[in-house]
Amino acid sequence: MTTTVACAQLALGVGDVAANLAAAEEAIDVAAGAGARVIVLPELANSGYVFADAAEARALAEPVDGPTVTAWAAAARRHGVTLVAGFAELDADGLVRNSAVLVDPTGTVRAVYRKAHLFGTEKDFFVPGDAAPPVVDIEGVGRIGVMVCYDVEFPEWVRRAALDGAELLCAPVNWPLFPRPAGERPGEVVRVQADAAVNRMYVAACDRAGAERGVAWTGGSVIVDPDGFPLAGHTPTDGPVLLLASCDLAQARDKRLGDHNDVFGDRRPELYAP
Amino acid sequence: MTTTVACAQLALGVGDVAANLAAAEEAIDVAAGAGARVIVLPELANSGYVFADAAEARALAEPVDGPTVTAWAAAARRHGVTLVAGFAELDADGLVRNSAVLVDPTGTVRAVYRKAHLFGTEKDFFVPGDAAPPVVDIEGVGRIGVMVCYDVEFPEWVRRAALDGAELLCAPVNWPLFPRPAGERPGEVVRVQADAAVNRMYVAACDRAGAERGVAWTGGSVIVDPDGFPLAGHTPTDGPVLLLASCDLAQARDKRLGDHNDVFGDRRPELYAP
Repeated sequence: MTTTVACAQLALGVGDVAANLAAAEEAIDVAAGAGARVIVLPELANSGYVFADAAEARALAEPVDGPTVTAWAAAARRHGVTLVAGFAELDADGLVRNSAVLVDPTGTVRAVYRKAHLFGTEKDFFVPGDAAPPVVDIEGVGRIGVMVCYDVEFPEWVRRAALDGAELLCAPVNWPLFPRPAGERPGEVVRVQADAAVNRMYVAACDRAGAERGVAWTGGSVIVDPDGFPLAGHTPTDGPVLLLASCDLAQARDKRLGDHNDVFGDRRPELYAP
Repeated sequence: MTTTVACAQLALGVGDVAANLAAAEEAIDVAAGAGARVIVLPELANSGYVFADAAEARALAEPVDGPTVTAWAAAARRHGVTLVAGFAELDADGLVRNSAVLVDPTGTVRAVYRKAHLFGTEKDFFVPGDAAPPVVDIEGVGRIGVMVCYDVEFPEWVRRAALDGAELLCAPVNWPLFPRPAGERPGEVVRVQADAAVNRMYVAACDRAGAERGVAWTGGSVIVDPDGFPLAGHTPTDGPVLLLASCDLAQARDKRLGDHNDVFGDRRPELYAP
């Protein structure tokens, strides 16, 4: 049984909450219309990313029952899709978090994940999470893991989600554009390919398009199969783009590699460093 | 200060110990003549790889003071180079190991590493090692880590070598050729790129060329920089090839990523699974 997975790479504006929500809702409509059953949006898709200061981040942060996630959940319910999207969260303790939500096809928020590895100046704006990446079983689809951007650059963290049963890891990301040699894929894409292959799972990373307050985004959205090869993306454009890929999540339950190996069973955890 | 690192991708024959040694010695001569100060040879470079049975593997295995490593050490001393090479080892307890040796420019064997993650039918021939990958400080060069082939597909193992100070990870490998989509690099190369980038270190993986008893090799030798981009290889040929890359190992001592991050300091080991 295959599931169509989508990454909706969006151009968003920092602080432009209404326009960002409209862009997300339109992308969800289009992706669902194209057959997507799982849709991933970028990191901080409610607020934008390049905050001037902590006060701006706090002012834009919303509780999980705030207007943006509520509207996303309604869109997920309307289309009967699973949605994974990043948002600036004001949590119940008043802390500002770089979070991602997983909403199931009934519109129920099944997980709120707080980014555990903060990048760049995020430490000035956000409190990192201390909880493991959630893995949520969606009936008729499979087990979906969630983490955010720089998290996927820590193979130990990706491994934890995989060992917890993730068959598809969904990662809202905002990858700032770094220089790279001609002809090379963005390094972040390469790392996602490796994340998928060493765990024999699917990974869908949804990046931003365009630029924001002088920060250009990579436009590196990619959906990778359990062999580590891209099924969709990254695309040559850094503009908005909808990636669609047909994924059989059951394949990610099989950790065998050829006739003699198993990427989990071959681990030697007793020898690894903490 | 830069060091020229070489991978000598060789075509070898199973059981043809004399020819394999001649090929290795010639490759060392050529690489050293081209300015290499660190030379990596493939996995099981004394014996070949595709054993008919355990008896054949045992018959071809040599102690670390046997003729092949002794000759390699003499070549290293003659040229004043550091050599990392894989060999079928008969250890002091009579166990057959898939090992790699690190010989310094004086011809001294500084480390013998036994592959900890065995691939394919290797479990029929070899006893896996239980010791951490060695990291050896070579004066005037830097700190060199050693592991073998499938080991590099376990990010926890690569991390251990990196945390132990490896600035250049040298990996003798024999990568069987797997199908891949058109235009894609071998998956093993992608994983090595990620290994390098997430640890901000150099990696030199030296593969085999050609085929052996019906097993085709990938010819995927590659030398990767701390950003995860190839400095040399992999090459379009699957034949013998000498890769050379100029590496400044001091750069791999700096784990900072931009102004705000550090790929080691940003780890959250208290949250990782064993």
